[in-house]
Amino acid sequence: MTRLGDRENKVVKALIFDVFGTVVDWRTGIAQQAEAFFGRHGIDADAKSFADAWRAKYQPAMERVRSGNRGYVPLDLLHRENLEGVLAEFGIAASIEPSELTEFSRAWEKLPPWPDSVPGLTILKKRHAIAPCSNGSIALMTWLAKNAGLPWDAILGADIAQAYKPQPEVYLRSVSALGLAPRDVMMVAAHNSDLFAARERGLRTGFVRRPHELGPGQTTNLEPESNWDIVASDFNELARRLESWSATAVPG
Amino acid sequence: MTRLGDRENKVVKALIFDVFGTVVDWRTGIAQQAEAFFGRHGIDADAKSFADAWRAKYQPAMERVRSGNRGYVPLDLLHRENLEGVLAEFGIAASIEPSELTEFSRAWEKLPPWPDSVPGLTILKKRHAIAPCSNGSIALMTWLAKNAGLPWDAILGADIAQAYKPQPEVYLRSVSALGLAPRDVMMVAAHNSDLFAARERGLRTGFVRRPHELGPGQTTNLEPESNWDIVASDFNELARRLESWSATAVPG
Repeated sequence: MTRLGDRENKVVKALIFDVFGTVVDWRTGIAQQAEAFFGRHGIDADAKSFADAWRAKYQPAMERVRSGNRGYVPLDLLHRENLEGVLAEFGIAASIEPSELTEFSRAWEKLPPWPDSVPGLTILKKRHAIAPCSNGSIALMTWLAKNAGLPWDAILGADIAQAYKPQPEVYLRSVSALGLAPRDVMMVAAHNSDLFAARERGLRTGFVRRPHELGPGQTTNLEPESNWDIVASDFNELARRLESWSATAVPG
Repeated sequence: MTRLGDRENKVVKALIFDVFGTVVDWRTGIAQQAEAFFGRHGIDADAKSFADAWRAKYQPAMERVRSGNRGYVPLDLLHRENLEGVLAEFGIAASIEPSELTEFSRAWEKLPPWPDSVPGLTILKKRHAIAPCSNGSIALMTWLAKNAGLPWDAILGADIAQAYKPQPEVYLRSVSALGLAPRDVMMVAAHNSDLFAARERGLRTGFVRRPHELGPGQTTNLEPESNWDIVASDFNELARRLESWSATAVPG
């Protein structure tokens, strides 16, 4: 695997991935850990609603950074702050030790991969560099990968750009950090908005359906909303389709 | 593997590594690729001397960045510039295509690991996060790892700090990028100077002997020059010693 070899067949030299929802099942993972946390503290609350409420604070918290109202801070800190907010919303007493809340806020480091994620990434890794391009920090992505067995080659994304997707610098810095041009890199996500932003900056796009990310009633991102370069229902299919697509692609 | 568990036994949660000389045998690798390059161009020059001369330009080029006389640029660019300098010194004609020089400058992405590097890292990875803390860029470290089979969990070092070792921010940013404190992280290097700088910032230190890094006549860094936390002759011994050291260590 050299960076320059076989240019005509291997158009995509690296794949970078959205992680929460695309690679790992955050809702199930957070709900399970919330359930255990509630059990320890004798709290009666619905764990899935709690997971949804915690996640609902994700975009607004990042938006304060994107808009310039707050300097870049890693997502770990936003998760920690948002945890306090959601506990308050659920009327859960503030008597829990801060250190235990910090530990609980790291639930995002212990999320289960979708069943096809590790086998699919393992196949893709043979011919491509693979890395997360997530809003999660290097720490969050590294420990999540160790817990879930994700075989990343590098950790890219928000931390190295000091910005949050869909800000363009996150995609561009992730690409340049690999010494590549945007057209050599495919962004893979289960969210159309992520792919629109990546394509805008010249990256290739791969859409993977994750129809249960938001639970049984999911109504968004069920299907591709544009002619993405590749559309697949799991990472194994992504690997297969990428192989054929690369073989037929004409370098632009 | 959680970030907080088993604190009493697993004092070192992550190991970060010097790479050129410590993990890979740059002199042999560069000499072999120079040999092939010379062959293609009918150049009569000593490949090992060429490797030494190219490497000799490494510290002075970084020093211009460290001293503030030049903004941070990735090592890939310094290697590319230094290649032109060393070719000129060797009286090698400037008639070679720039694109071929760029390709040759990426010889640093194709260096052989020492025989114990991959097996040793594979063992260490089971209980610790492992990452390069090199002056090489994310790109250089990622492609080198793919070529050599180095199983890093993340890529840390110069690029994320936008500075060159031994500047303290390279160690500190690599540690904080993992969400850890310096005492939770061990810097591993075959160079005493690297370990002095890391210890100064509170990191644990592991010295690995690489007595042939500079060829048969090596006179420096043959032995530890301080009471480093661990001293080993290869990565397998490092893994064994770390295991016993961690089991007996009293958290400070």
